[in-house]
Amino acid sequence: MKLFNIFILFIITLGVSAGQHPGLTLTQAGVQSIRAGLSANPMFQKELEKTQHNVDLAIAEGFDIPIPKDMAGGYTHERHKVNYNLMHKAGNLYQITGEEKYAKLVKDMLMEYAEIFPTLPIHPTKKSYATGKIFWQCLNDANWVVFTSQAYDCIYNYLSAEERKHLEEDLFVPYADFLSIENPKFFNRIHNHSTWANAAVGMMALAMDNDTLLQKALYGLQNDGINADEFDDDGGFFKMEGVTKAGFLAQLDYSFSPDGYFSEGPYYQRYAIFPFLVFSHALHNKKPELDIFNYRDGILKKATQSLLQLTNTQGHFFPINDAQKGMSFNAFEIVNAVNIMYMADDSQDYLLDWAYVQDAVILNEAGFKTAKALDNHKVEQLKKTSKIYRDGVDGKGGGVAAIREGDLEVLFKFSTQGMGHGHFDRLSYSLYDGAGEVVQDYGAVRWVNVDQKAGGRYLPENKTFGKQTIGHNTAVINGISHYKGSVKKAEAHHPIIYYHNFEEGFQVVSAIEDNAYKGTSMHRSIYLINDEDLSSAVMLDLLQIKTEKPATIELPLWFVGQTMKSSFDCPKLSNELSLLGDKNGYQHIWKESSCNSNEDFIQFNWFNNNRFYTMSTVGEDGDEMIKGRLGANDPNYNLRPDPVLIHKRNNRSHSTFVNVIEPHGRYDRSTEIPDKPYALITDVQKIYEDDHYLISSLSTSTHTWTVMLSTSNNDEKKNHKINFEGKEYVWEGVTKIKKETK
Amino acid sequence: MKLFNIFILFIITLGVSAGQHPGLTLTQAGVQSIRAGLSANPMFQKELEKTQHNVDLAIAEGFDIPIPKDMAGGYTHERHKVNYNLMHKAGNLYQITGEEKYAKLVKDMLMEYAEIFPTLPIHPTKKSYATGKIFWQCLNDANWVVFTSQAYDCIYNYLSAEERKHLEEDLFVPYADFLSIENPKFFNRIHNHSTWANAAVGMMALAMDNDTLLQKALYGLQNDGINADEFDDDGGFFKMEGVTKAGFLAQLDYSFSPDGYFSEGPYYQRYAIFPFLVFSHALHNKKPELDIFNYRDGILKKATQSLLQLTNTQGHFFPINDAQKGMSFNAFEIVNAVNIMYMADDSQDYLLDWAYVQDAVILNEAGFKTAKALDNHKVEQLKKTSKIYRDGVDGKGGGVAAIREGDLEVLFKFSTQGMGHGHFDRLSYSLYDGAGEVVQDYGAVRWVNVDQKAGGRYLPENKTFGKQTIGHNTAVINGISHYKGSVKKAEAHHPIIYYHNFEEGFQVVSAIEDNAYKGTSMHRSIYLINDEDLSSAVMLDLLQIKTEKPATIELPLWFVGQTMKSSFDCPKLSNELSLLGDKNGYQHIWKESSCNSNEDFIQFNWFNNNRFYTMSTVGEDGDEMIKGRLGANDPNYNLRPDPVLIHKRNNRSHSTFVNVIEPHGRYDRSTEIPDKPYALITDVQKIYEDDHYLISSLSTSTHTWTVMLSTSNNDEKKNHKINFEGKEYVWEGVTKIKKETK
Repeated sequence: MKLFNIFILFIITLGVSAGQHPGLTLTQAGVQSIRAGLSANPMFQKELEKTQHNVDLAIAEGFDIPIPKDMAGGYTHERHKVNYNLMHKAGNLYQITGEEKYAKLVKDMLMEYAEIFPTLPIHPTKKSYATGKIFWQCLNDANWVVFTSQAYDCIYNYLSAEERKHLEEDLFVPYADFLSIENPKFFNRIHNHSTWANAAVGMMALAMDNDTLLQKALYGLQNDGINADEFDDDGGFFKMEGVTKAGFLAQLDYSFSPDGYFSEGPYYQRYAIFPFLVFSHALHNKKPELDIFNYRDGILKKATQSLLQLTNTQGHFFPINDAQKGMSFNAFEIVNAVNIMYMADDSQDYLLDWAYVQDAVILNEAGFKTAKALDNHKVEQLKKTSKIYRDGVDGKGGGVAAIREGDLEVLFKFSTQGMGHGHFDRLSYSLYDGAGEVVQDYGAVRWVNVDQKAGGRYLPENKTFGKQTIGHNTAVINGISHYKGSVKKAEAHHPIIYYHNFEEGFQVVSAIEDNAYKGTSMHRSIYLINDEDLSSAVMLDLLQIKTEKPATIELPLWFVGQTMKSSFDCPKLSNELSLLGDKNGYQHIWKESSCNSNEDFIQFNWFNNNRFYTMSTVGEDGDEMIKGRLGANDPNYNLRPDPVLIHKRNNRSHSTFVNVIEPHGRYDRSTEIPDKPYALITDVQKIYEDDHYLISSLSTSTHTWTVMLSTSNNDEKKNHKINFEGKEYVWEGVTKIKKETK
Repeated sequence: MKLFNIFILFIITLGVSAGQHPGLTLTQAGVQSIRAGLSANPMFQKELEKTQHNVDLAIAEGFDIPIPKDMAGGYTHERHKVNYNLMHKAGNLYQITGEEKYAKLVKDMLMEYAEIFPTLPIHPTKKSYATGKIFWQCLNDANWVVFTSQAYDCIYNYLSAEERKHLEEDLFVPYADFLSIENPKFFNRIHNHSTWANAAVGMMALAMDNDTLLQKALYGLQNDGINADEFDDDGGFFKMEGVTKAGFLAQLDYSFSPDGYFSEGPYYQRYAIFPFLVFSHALHNKKPELDIFNYRDGILKKATQSLLQLTNTQGHFFPINDAQKGMSFNAFEIVNAVNIMYMADDSQDYLLDWAYVQDAVILNEAGFKTAKALDNHKVEQLKKTSKIYRDGVDGKGGGVAAIREGDLEVLFKFSTQGMGHGHFDRLSYSLYDGAGEVVQDYGAVRWVNVDQKAGGRYLPENKTFGKQTIGHNTAVINGISHYKGSVKKAEAHHPIIYYHNFEEGFQVVSAIEDNAYKGTSMHRSIYLINDEDLSSAVMLDLLQIKTEKPATIELPLWFVGQTMKSSFDCPKLSNELSLLGDKNGYQHIWKESSCNSNEDFIQFNWFNNNRFYTMSTVGEDGDEMIKGRLGANDPNYNLRPDPVLIHKRNNRSHSTFVNVIEPHGRYDRSTEIPDKPYALITDVQKIYEDDHYLISSLSTSTHTWTVMLSTSNNDEKKNHKINFEGKEYVWEGVTKIKKETK
């Protein structure tokens, strides 16, 4: 068996000869090895049988190739999606099983597409900056071509030379031209749309052995005539400052940071990774000289790793920027990524643990190899670690951090804007525990592909609320969103990483944003602290804000769950609800209550998923605590009725928030016994602050933990000493914690 | 082994001799058999080890017997609860393991209780109609005695005669007197509180072999001096009309209907069943001549069966009346019930399937026997069926029905009021599918034992919203709750069961309520219909209302989830929310939108748990569709912000609602593919109606189902014929369905 593997690898490594079919994501040698090893590979066999069952059902039902008409969610849209998936599967099945009915299905469908294609005008909807042919946007047409190119490759030798000529001349080449030279704004960007476009044209080029098209796919169009000021439907610019290259290799150069992070965030990275990997898979087979999986120091490996790591305890991607919640590592694209990257480098054993929890493989030799390896693999718990994922092509564009301690996970965001899909939420965070969301990021206001909700497109509230700063867990100054909600201004700047340390029990990431508001500096340090004398890991959040002029500062806490008790007395309004404001997202929040709190220690206790949580914070004279509920100015019920607690300070030019979030108890509804319903934290203090230092503390009834932070010098070796109120604070490096028994 | 079992059964059947200890829920023979069979009973052994581990930890920590002070959730309350549980466990452990440390723990704790008890005044809180000694209410004191009596029984022979005399004279007898003669309102009712009181006094009597006390426990106090008009904290009356008996046997006579239904509903039945069974277990051992498990034709068996059946697909009790949601068959009381009833009659094999899903047994011979039998039992899926549970001591007080078809489950309620814990919700229903709630019953506004929420007591909103009619899925006339919200008036009447049929694919329960409003008749027929040409089982709801004078009729739909789309155009209010009304629960609902709909077919589509649902209904001219959200007049955030859709008709003296609720699709967030997002039902009609008949229909694009109902004659053999608009409707019996292809 081992020897046989080496033989296969050898074939793959050498690539398939130009004219060999299949040669994209299946190869002749790969097909032989699948057929030979099938009976010894139950996981793959299960996948094969499931696919056969579904395709057989579809054959029995007969196919339909309707004239394009509908938006996403509508019949023609969904049917054409079904069609390309069906052709892709049938092509693979033809190769693996040898049964002619599968080849015939692909041929019959392609012939009918070749019949209608020359007569099609552009799609009648005309709602996109790049309207497609079969679909409302070119993006979906590119999806069609990516899948169909593989189906064509699989039945290439089943077709006569004349049939191939007809398909290529009347369908594939014109389609490729439509997606490239006829739609340069779609094809020639550094953007996930263009990655799909490049992959579509490139894969069809490889299937047809058409080198002219392949060159376009790899290196872009020479003269695209796009103006630097033009932007797309999402508000993203077509041109990236300083970038003149285009095409697939340029996507690899510019789409990811050196850590494999994608500036739009993991939800879009999940979508974008698919054309990257599937086209790379084909290039790996057909153009091995490109050594695509090692391109840019193995950027695709890093991209896959960062994707897997940017999932929460439920396996869902952290929903930063425009992202629909619930998308998870079970997505088809991630199964594909795990399989292809394992095929490309089988020293990455950790991928098998992910394949195990996905419990699915793809129906080609990458999936076959993964399934086979899993059979002999001792499955381990998924390894998820704390890490900073630097953003920016050069890694100097800030980033995001996943911080993990105990069963707590923070996603702290200090990345670039993320183009048109970015949210105005510099230095925001979201918090999770083993049961799910604790402090949420709302995600996108969108129901992808759901016809009832505007055909699955972004809903108006995505712009008016979803992207606005007040909808996130970060500071809003004077009720205005970061960068005044301008993508262009926001794209010009990024936060700076000040410091990080991932030492178990005392982890911290600290970042600075100086440009979100004119003359305003925001420095946030987020800690996860764990100690045997705490109820569990807790989050300490130190947010320092300095403004040029006195300002109103608001810090929202989008806690998830039901209000249990507050230390401040602030009854909900009884008879009438009005708006929190009239713009910048505030117009979407009902004001449920608003009170001054003059306590110097404020606690807020809530309940969710049968657990209790408390936010403890330092209060100052005149602090306002506002409770709001989402859902105003929302005529079509697009928003979830989520609650928020806003900590508001008026007329400050320097303000520091010291917050602790503590999960601390449970309630079992079948015993009705609450365990630790109240926080163990009984005090939080800001002990000392000047331009260089911030010293704060948290206490339980038995212990005090003092956290010392150098805010102006991030030298890890420097010694610091502060004397204050008769006490000496001495530490080395940026930040330290000191535990004392009371 | 078999022979040995028969021997044990023989001993148990004969009862233990009066002076034998232990003799309540453990017997000497039982202990011997447990010790002998332990190694062959891993499930019981696991339970034993877990209990030992916990009790050993508690012994290491040391115990505390604080002076009573707090409400539920507070320290002294929770500590005394821990204490009686600990003594109970330690007593059992002493018997099973023979280790003296367990007996010593019980003795030490009892001695300290005996020390403080004589000095204790009644509990300082004084918030109950029957304030306790150790706890804020006698009910918890009775809990203490029920558990402690078993602990005392277990260490009886470990104590010297003098020690026993001290405990009995200074603690147990005075405590039993306190709970009986000193608190007749607590002891002498037909009520779950009194069942606890009777069990407490009775079990302690058995432990002490005190026949005077036992007679009180079994037959009640002779002269209690309670006035027929007096009522308790929940608004329930102390005296049941026509009932003069009291004591434990009277509880068995009057607490359950002949079907084993408990008028307060399954949540309270779960609580009440514990003292019934644990005292019966002790009587079974010590007073076998009572043959308690066969008393009243085996009422305790029936009560256990009805409890298990009145759970939804998630295993949670249907939350009718005052009930905290989430209480499930995993509750300690239900584990106890399954074990004891299996011990009492091991022909009830089905109980082992429940024991299997509970994955727990109690630490006595009932648990031992169950665990052992489970070892050899072929576990089957839980058998849950459609059934009517008649209410009323004579079975003539209406009832509730669980109707199950496909993965749909309806709980239809047409029972008596349920005393002080009853809600004013005649003919209401709640609907569930495999994923959970579809149309909800709110349950109680209460967080049991959670200190943050008023010490775990009923919250004010339970009375002002939770019990009110508008909070339920049933008709409200002129904005007033059923029986004007008077328990006394509501207790005087009950709905009538008109008809039921549980034939697979076409199930129906029909009931009539004529007294909730003066001169008003409400007749509701709830169907579950399944057919291969439907997306899944659907619910058809026919509600006919006739009033003396023209009235406003509102039918709320407490759907669970997010609004997707309505056929009626009715944007949510944007800038300001006001109240739906000023009393009867309306004051707790924000009005989100309100529109006239003049369509004759109305659809409302919502989403929850990754599924789509649609309510389709017949519209009439001038119908108003109102959307509301719970949470107004709720200063302490006690209410969940749940949505409601209200179908409102003004100025009608006769109005019929024909509604269909259809679960029809799914949305997978990791594929982002919606499957059947829209209803298959495309039309619902009321075809014909007069004083004797109602003919309605539902249609998909391919089929029509016509449902014919005789509304004035429930003879199952009668033939009916209607000619209407050129069509003939002929059927036999009360109701039939006819399917036609379009």
